[in-house]
Amino acid sequence: MTKMNYAKENLWQIEEVGFDSRYLGKTESIMALGNGYIGSRSATEEAYVGERRDTFVAGTFNKFDENEVSELPNIPDIWWLDVIVNGEHFTLEKGAVTGFSKRLNLKNGELTRDFVWEFKTIKLKFKFRRFISMARRHYLSNLVEIENLSAEKVSVQVRSGVNGQVTNSGSQHFNEGEKGLVDGKFLQMMPQTIESKIDFVFTLAHKVTAENLTARIEMGRRQIFMNYFFEIAPNESAVIEKRMSVRTSIDNDTDNHDVASLRELSIAEMKGIDALSFDELLAESAEKWAEIWAKHPIVIESQDFHDQLAIRFAKYHLHVMTPAHDPHMNIGAKGMSGEGYKGHTFWDTEVFMLPYFNFTHPEIAKSLVTYRYLGLDGAHKKAAENGYLGAQYPWEAANPTDGEVTPVWGAADIVTGQSTKIWSGFIEQHITSDVVFGVKQYIDVTGDLEFTQEKAYEILFDTAKFWGSRLEYNADKDCYEINDVIGADEYKEHVNNNAYTNYTAHWNVKYALELAAELRENEPEIFARLDDKLDLTTVLPDLADKLDKIFLPQPTADGIIPQDDTYLSKKIIDLTKYKAKDGVDGLFHDYNLEQVNEMQITKQADVLLLMFLFEGLFDRELKLKNFEYYEPKTTHDSSLSLSTHAILSADLGKVAESYEFFKKARHIDMGGFMKSSDDGIHAASLGGIWQMTVFGYGGVRMIDGKLRIEPHLPEAWTRLTYGFDYQGQAITVTVTHDSFVLSKADNGCDVSFISNNGNYVLQNKLTLSLGGKS
Amino acid sequence: MTKMNYAKENLWQIEEVGFDSRYLGKTESIMALGNGYIGSRSATEEAYVGERRDTFVAGTFNKFDENEVSELPNIPDIWWLDVIVNGEHFTLEKGAVTGFSKRLNLKNGELTRDFVWEFKTIKLKFKFRRFISMARRHYLSNLVEIENLSAEKVSVQVRSGVNGQVTNSGSQHFNEGEKGLVDGKFLQMMPQTIESKIDFVFTLAHKVTAENLTARIEMGRRQIFMNYFFEIAPNESAVIEKRMSVRTSIDNDTDNHDVASLRELSIAEMKGIDALSFDELLAESAEKWAEIWAKHPIVIESQDFHDQLAIRFAKYHLHVMTPAHDPHMNIGAKGMSGEGYKGHTFWDTEVFMLPYFNFTHPEIAKSLVTYRYLGLDGAHKKAAENGYLGAQYPWEAANPTDGEVTPVWGAADIVTGQSTKIWSGFIEQHITSDVVFGVKQYIDVTGDLEFTQEKAYEILFDTAKFWGSRLEYNADKDCYEINDVIGADEYKEHVNNNAYTNYTAHWNVKYALELAAELRENEPEIFARLDDKLDLTTVLPDLADKLDKIFLPQPTADGIIPQDDTYLSKKIIDLTKYKAKDGVDGLFHDYNLEQVNEMQITKQADVLLLMFLFEGLFDRELKLKNFEYYEPKTTHDSSLSLSTHAILSADLGKVAESYEFFKKARHIDMGGFMKSSDDGIHAASLGGIWQMTVFGYGGVRMIDGKLRIEPHLPEAWTRLTYGFDYQGQAITVTVTHDSFVLSKADNGCDVSFISNNGNYVLQNKLTLSLGGKS
Repeated sequence: MTKMNYAKENLWQIEEVGFDSRYLGKTESIMALGNGYIGSRSATEEAYVGERRDTFVAGTFNKFDENEVSELPNIPDIWWLDVIVNGEHFTLEKGAVTGFSKRLNLKNGELTRDFVWEFKTIKLKFKFRRFISMARRHYLSNLVEIENLSAEKVSVQVRSGVNGQVTNSGSQHFNEGEKGLVDGKFLQMMPQTIESKIDFVFTLAHKVTAENLTARIEMGRRQIFMNYFFEIAPNESAVIEKRMSVRTSIDNDTDNHDVASLRELSIAEMKGIDALSFDELLAESAEKWAEIWAKHPIVIESQDFHDQLAIRFAKYHLHVMTPAHDPHMNIGAKGMSGEGYKGHTFWDTEVFMLPYFNFTHPEIAKSLVTYRYLGLDGAHKKAAENGYLGAQYPWEAANPTDGEVTPVWGAADIVTGQSTKIWSGFIEQHITSDVVFGVKQYIDVTGDLEFTQEKAYEILFDTAKFWGSRLEYNADKDCYEINDVIGADEYKEHVNNNAYTNYTAHWNVKYALELAAELRENEPEIFARLDDKLDLTTVLPDLADKLDKIFLPQPTADGIIPQDDTYLSKKIIDLTKYKAKDGVDGLFHDYNLEQVNEMQITKQADVLLLMFLFEGLFDRELKLKNFEYYEPKTTHDSSLSLSTHAILSADLGKVAESYEFFKKARHIDMGGFMKSSDDGIHAASLGGIWQMTVFGYGGVRMIDGKLRIEPHLPEAWTRLTYGFDYQGQAITVTVTHDSFVLSKADNGCDVSFISNNGNYVLQNKLTLSLGGKS
Repeated sequence: MTKMNYAKENLWQIEEVGFDSRYLGKTESIMALGNGYIGSRSATEEAYVGERRDTFVAGTFNKFDENEVSELPNIPDIWWLDVIVNGEHFTLEKGAVTGFSKRLNLKNGELTRDFVWEFKTIKLKFKFRRFISMARRHYLSNLVEIENLSAEKVSVQVRSGVNGQVTNSGSQHFNEGEKGLVDGKFLQMMPQTIESKIDFVFTLAHKVTAENLTARIEMGRRQIFMNYFFEIAPNESAVIEKRMSVRTSIDNDTDNHDVASLRELSIAEMKGIDALSFDELLAESAEKWAEIWAKHPIVIESQDFHDQLAIRFAKYHLHVMTPAHDPHMNIGAKGMSGEGYKGHTFWDTEVFMLPYFNFTHPEIAKSLVTYRYLGLDGAHKKAAENGYLGAQYPWEAANPTDGEVTPVWGAADIVTGQSTKIWSGFIEQHITSDVVFGVKQYIDVTGDLEFTQEKAYEILFDTAKFWGSRLEYNADKDCYEINDVIGADEYKEHVNNNAYTNYTAHWNVKYALELAAELRENEPEIFARLDDKLDLTTVLPDLADKLDKIFLPQPTADGIIPQDDTYLSKKIIDLTKYKAKDGVDGLFHDYNLEQVNEMQITKQADVLLLMFLFEGLFDRELKLKNFEYYEPKTTHDSSLSLSTHAILSADLGKVAESYEFFKKARHIDMGGFMKSSDDGIHAASLGGIWQMTVFGYGGVRMIDGKLRIEPHLPEAWTRLTYGFDYQGQAITVTVTHDSFVLSKADNGCDVSFISNNGNYVLQNKLTLSLGGKS
């Protein structure tokens, strides 16, 4: 009845054909709109049972009460527009609907929905359009054109306004606020978040083109709206355009944050664009999108056109969801496309999304890593609460200074019927080295010396200081352990010496010690400043003593690195039936988390992620053995898993297998399973699509400060063109099965390599100068 | 498509036939269930856009934030039960629905809904049943029987539990609370109100009779529910029964109010009734209803059977909505059938609903007047805030000690587009004398000496003390005025010397002075106690000085008592077109309140209400002139207006006209206008139905401490039988057009009167002994 529809004739279009209210969540999420400031699910104008009408403004976190954690509040619904025809409420649930198409144009961010609706004697053609402007941060707009295909004239009432009755699944983050009509034309509503006290100003205006038009303002509780009454003669049309502006008291593009100033500013902006049409305003936004698309476009020549579409889909959402405008904000695990994960930032940013920005939009990447620098206060808070030194990053982060915001209680345990405790906020500690990994990647890729000296060094030392205090001495073994943690594999709670955690912590400490030595030698002033701030004189000798005694799980006789101290001794079950499904929640209908904890079942890449991110630490044979051991035990019950497996298997030359992971990963949001994305799009997975393409098949990697390129094209791909910025230089790469060519944008000089049994050989003698290194 | 259906064959049944989701609010309200402890709109089990799923527990007021006022919070939705058949969500919006009937049985409080639903190959007969137990205060239950009329077996999933995502139009009054499964069987959820900190315990159990049944618990945010999966073979049925208990930490039927005790108590009760079937539990409740119906049944023999149905409808709701169990609670202006008026108590109680209880259930009346005694603290608070002495009752009341809880801002002004200020909380001051009127009626009707001496006297003096401080001396006229008020007619804001206000204040003061004289003489100890508490020695002489100088608007040359100082000088417009409509909001599409303020338009009985309540103050001719002057200027845009006009016109012998008012009043909720009751039933109007019947046509009145009976039957009525308690004696009255007979239950002695041109003449010489008076 409803399905996703993709066409090779239009590789910028995501389309749903047919309407079925059971699957509203799918396109609400995957067709989400945004500009990094505002993000919104693409819920329909008219309401349906089961819909989720979420719109968020980045960084406006609020806590409902002391029992909850801060979350991104669902702002009053500004898209609301009800149509009543001859006294009948228009809804797609009633009557006959033909030609239903809902489309997202990735190129310009426009959402369109059209269909013909027949009910009793009424026959109308609807066309809805909307966008959130990339050109005007605060501006969004929707429009409906109604054409009367009935034999008779119809009487239409449109109710359109702001509805503040929405909540985050029942938690109301706003007070009602003042509301009113300004200049007889602008509806305004000014609610405030109840705990964080952020003021919001919503300003709406309508342009209505219709016959016999009358209008009446109305207010309800937490609502203000206009009623328009008009008629449409047969074969005539009416158009209702809604223009909206959202501003808040934490906006960083304005000096005066009092409500009166924000109200004036909104109205001035609305008046300023009064002469511009919907199409002109959309065109402004499309121009900004064109700039984004012009930056390192990726061209995939594949037997399967969905591959090209997928990379555009991924990049579209990466820009829609990323609050590039303000370093006090970061990317949510669902972007701003749903309430899932409450708008919180996880390691997903550093490990999955940041690489795209590092290599394509370094200025946005800088904002994202600056967030972690601003987050040192929060990380100190968390470390102190847990009795540690230095900076321990929160597993989930909201405002950078908040510290830990992971909720404590989760879903029901099907065996006991009680809520399960969410342990990740307490013991999923690898986030701290993940942040350092991200920062290191950023400075290596961009060569941003200012950030490096002013911010990165401090993060690197402060986190190493945390690890120094976190390590637990085991006198029996004369080594330092990290016990009672959750590793990357979240099925295993309370394990000791998780491989991913221990290796990355060791790397973090080692890196800090190497850096200290270098700074002492070459940048004594910087070192002195940081010593002053972080007491490095005390911290570093302690770290130096501990470094070599940090326990790093070693391969077994079979070459398997134990995921943790007990993993390999646990029961093995056949996961085939769970892996066959869309999603794997079937596993948790049969077992509870406690039971899964006692089996060799892995939610997502753990040892394998370590081998992908820190490939220099392990040889090819070891990686292969571990891949073959762990992958069959992995449910991929996290959208963070498939892309890692795809890249690692491509690295290992298993390109056909890799491409299967690629396709599954691409399906997570874009696939035909219509319940996949109800809680929001899978942000990390979208970063993963870019990584699979550029890191996996394009073969790019930044390892130990060195850029390497080693492409592996899947069979189905005949050519891949991608680009990246490396330390200020723009590089374009074209890969075929036989060769690849690097081009530098600034001098047009190409360097070609040809394939020789999987090893690429430099074809000519030109020296490639990349960032001063050669 | 949908309409109300009443049948003379069943005068206990309110029925809606046909389904139309535009009109959900009608039967949600008029078929509301309750037992005074819990009250609930009869929203459907499955959800619809536009529904209002409200359930309330009396007295559990909470304030969302400092900008809002306390209101009765909408508790988590316990009726929630979704049915999914062959993967399709059941909803009446889809497919074909035949034989739809939703019925409220007034006799036993059972709600039933049945229909056949066809969708694709699915054909099912549904029967939903529910009740809130009159026998077990905390208990409610619903049930669905699904019969498979399809050719094939169907697979069914039922999701049933508690959903705490509901709000009061966006304001969330609860925290999420703990939730879990107890004994593998009972779902529990324990939210707490966020400001008043009242703990709630919801306990649910299911009984499912179905083939191949499996079950799975699930939790969502603010949700806990069971999923049942089963099959129904053709011509077979499945039954899902849901059993629910609600308890709170302010329950007055339990000693331990901690959550653990409430949880145990709930489960113990659920276990205790485990062996009882739905029908047995319903029968228990029906027995309690039978006791209510046995108390002074009213029998109307009318050409229009709706009259009989209406009085039952009124009495049903009066019991459903009244928290008879706890004097800290009172009746909301919408009962507990909607969010309208926030569960607050107005003068509606004393002037409209209390008379029914005074005359029929004096023990419930006692609880209602005791609420006002407990409210003296709140009334002192309000008086002090306004710079007055004594007890000034709040226009809207929640908890008795809260004081004023009228919201400050209301709907949009259609001219300016701004919220209009609600002045009634500030200046609608007649509520104080209305409360005294109610208390005086209660003690006169019941002869409750204990209440009189311990509570009523204090209220009477304390309110007179308020009026003494409220009066404003006008030196020019050497009189005391009451300026800047809203009278009973709420269209007129900021008027001086409103007739209703001044006369009732004068009455209140006069009564206090007379009482003081009597007490000094006959009950010096009581007087001394009250003097001590209220400083009567100072207060009374001041009141005595002022009494005769209180300005009482006198009739003009034409015999019209001015509604206020300026009313009669205002513009008169023809209201015919506004009075023709269902509801009169059309007036406010043409004029705003400020404009209506400047015209001789009255919302509801004002001078005429005064003449009804204090009939001894005015002669018949004056009443007639004023009736004829004011009625055409009255929009009856308050459900408090029609019954007053009906009774007064009956008193004046205009019985045919009166009966027209009666029918209109009966139509307010029961009539065919399907949007009439969206915000809740009209509680005062329901009290009005009883008053029109017993006071208007039965002719009963308690005037100046004397009971009088002077019946006036409408032409359509051939016989009216009603009863009442008078000072502990049960009286039954049978009225025909020719005579009426009073019967005393205790000695079976009848007194008959025969009509002589409208004057009833005692037919025999028996002395009627009523409460010692003769």
